[in-house]
Amino acid sequence: MDTKALYDEKRQLVLDELSAALAGIDPEAIGKLIDALDAAEKVFFIGVGRVMLSLQAIAKRLKHIGYDTWVVGETTEPPITERDLLIVGSGSGSTLVPSGIAKKAKGFGATIAHIGCVPDNPITPITDIFVRVPCKNKKVMDDVVPSRQPMTTLFEQCVLLLGDIITVMILEKRGVVVNEDMWCEHANLE
Amino acid sequence: MDTKALYDEKRQLVLDELSAALAGIDPEAIGKLIDALDAAEKVFFIGVGRVMLSLQAIAKRLKHIGYDTWVVGETTEPPITERDLLIVGSGSGSTLVPSGIAKKAKGFGATIAHIGCVPDNPITPITDIFVRVPCKNKKVMDDVVPSRQPMTTLFEQCVLLLGDIITVMILEKRGVVVNEDMWCEHANLE
Amino acid sequence: MDTKALYDEKRQLVLDELSAALAGIDPEAIGKLIDALDAAEKVFFIGVGRVMLSLQAIAKRLKHIGYDTWVVGETTEPPITERDLLIVGSGSGSTLVPSGIAKKAKGFGATIAHIGCVPDNPITPITDIFVRVPCKNKKVMDDVVPSRQPMTTLFEQCVLLLGDIITVMILEKRGVVVNEDMWCEHANLE
Amino acid sequence: MDTKALYDEKRQLVLDELSAALAGIDPEAIGKLIDALDAAEKVFFIGVGRVMLSLQAIAKRLKHIGYDTWVVGETTEPPITERDLLIVGSGSGSTLVPSGIAKKAKGFGATIAHIGCVPDNPITPITDIFVRVPCKNKKVMDDVVPSRQPMTTLFEQCVLLLGDIITVMILEKRGVVVNEDMWCEHANLE
Repeated sequence: MDTKALYDEKRQLVLDELSAALAGIDPEAIGKLIDALDAAEKVFFIGVGRVMLSLQAIAKRLKHIGYDTWVVGETTEPPITERDLLIVGSGSGSTLVPSGIAKKAKGFGATIAHIGCVPDNPITPITDIFVRVPCKNKKVMDDVVPSRQPMTTLFEQCVLLLGDIITVMILEKRGVVVNEDMWCEHANLE
Repeated sequence: MDTKALYDEKRQLVLDELSAALAGIDPEAIGKLIDALDAAEKVFFIGVGRVMLSLQAIAKRLKHIGYDTWVVGETTEPPITERDLLIVGSGSGSTLVPSGIAKKAKGFGATIAHIGCVPDNPITPITDIFVRVPCKNKKVMDDVVPSRQPMTTLFEQCVLLLGDIITVMILEKRGVVVNEDMWCEHANLE
Repeated sequence: MDTKALYDEKRQLVLDELSAALAGIDPEAIGKLIDALDAAEKVFFIGVGRVMLSLQAIAKRLKHIGYDTWVVGETTEPPITERDLLIVGSGSGSTLVPSGIAKKAKGFGATIAHIGCVPDNPITPITDIFVRVPCKNKKVMDDVVPSRQPMTTLFEQCVLLLGDIITVMILEKRGVVVNEDMWCEHANLE
Repeated sequence: MDTKALYDEKRQLVLDELSAALAGIDPEAIGKLIDALDAAEKVFFIGVGRVMLSLQAIAKRLKHIGYDTWVVGETTEPPITERDLLIVGSGSGSTLVPSGIAKKAKGFGATIAHIGCVPDNPITPITDIFVRVPCKNKKVMDDVVPSRQPMTTLFEQCVLLLGDIITVMILEKRGVVVNEDMWCEHANLE
């Protein structure tokens, strides 16, 4: 197959998977997550690997539109309190660091939002808001979007796009027209 | 507008923008980038902000499928040589750090691949492979996909998805069936 | 030589070098740096490699004692303004990223403090406060503490210790007794 | 007190504490750690906060002198195996992430070296080499060097300096003269 045909096929494969997986997220859970963002004083993010990278991208953009966001583990991270929100990204909900941090945060009274794949998981008992992205995980589940991408790629992509869709939803709710004025909260040392 | 309708609208907006922007990438440039990946001894990645996060996600996945990838600035980064490839992510090609690092890398004889938006830019003279993603940038350009997402969000999303599409293309070329065996190069301490 | 004798010798070597290099810092420059910390709204830190790691340690501790510190390049970094301080760590003052960021920060009106080794260097013209640590650098200088540690190790160690000494100086000026109450600004998710 | 007198006093305070704490480390444990470094195929480092920063500085320098070092959590981290060494930095041995990662690494058969303060701690049962730095920790202990620096500053400083002393010890054992040739393994993109 030539490169053009191969690119066309695989590009469509990825877009189709994204379209199906994102369509499978419950809008009500998204609404609750937006409410929790608006109610929180500070918003913390924790995940590992590529999920963490997607969460960092969300943290960065939400900071630009006015939220006080923090990535767990970065140098000048403040303490979490009962007025704050922790957003945990973990398909399985069982990864060591995110689940451990979620438990610590709950102990400090923070609200816990979990973006994941497996409905009943180790952090379910302490989860206030669960946003399910119906993607495959190491655990076999029948009700997920089939993916021909390796490992948990589809979930990682969906986390980023979900964050960016939520950003546009929030801007529309605020009546903000997207334009250059938005750069005012953007880092200028880069 | 209720949350469901708002989510449906904005989800479609993002997917439509992604579909148009990714379709606007020249497959020939992608083919050259894949050849450069296969020819390189080590592959380095540099960008800033959310573009860097997308590049880190690519670096991580390409490592899983066997490339010796490195993120510029991480603790145990080795020196770059003339047998290596530097992938620069920068819409404008003028951002301080990526453009400066690209010049240093060229001085060491490395191959430079640039994923960006603006065709004629400060690193064009030292770029070996330019993969153009037709997204808006601070510089006004007529031939880009219009975006209603803030700042350079669409470009950042495209960089991640382009990397993941390339991964699937490479796996298909190798005749690899995506399955659980792929986890063997994955970090196990997380 | 047995391990005990070797450890005793090299431990003393490092402590002697530290003692001499730290004694060679001008207290007046340190006083100006402390004044600049107290005058600043936000304090940013930039360096590369092990110097950056020492600066990150300082940023973290100064945050604990009440300064609003930020590491350039971390995810949720805010913009710098003319009310802020940038602390640049660079022995030579000529490293690409720190010197480039310093120039950008000066363009936004920020105060620039430079902790370095070489007195006349590329960022001297924009430096408001220069704290010289008399350590060797790639540039040959006669008036530095001789070091038998590799590369710029002694400078990197001095940056960390200088930051920690400054912290204790600030606490003493404030009349703070060091005790457990200090943990209140410490991250609690780790 | 004027700034010069204050700086002189606090500089001496820090140097005296460092001298006492470093003198309290058992050289035999250091010898075992060096042997483990030489025996390992890859060396991983885990800690949190300022301890992690000190470990990152060690990882970077040991890479320069030829060890294949990795910081847990960085983008392109490979899997750990039974031929590898994990160096855990944690004063208490009870911090969530380092102790959890240590247990995972032990499960993969890796050798565990722990640099810490509290002799009997949660990871003692899986620790192969324990290097005790006699510094204060949240747990009250009588046999530690008293410190007037805040929190666990003295331990964090000692971890960095211990790594740098070990580096000089290794170079001496190898008969290496410290000079500019050492830069060959140093990152050149910065």
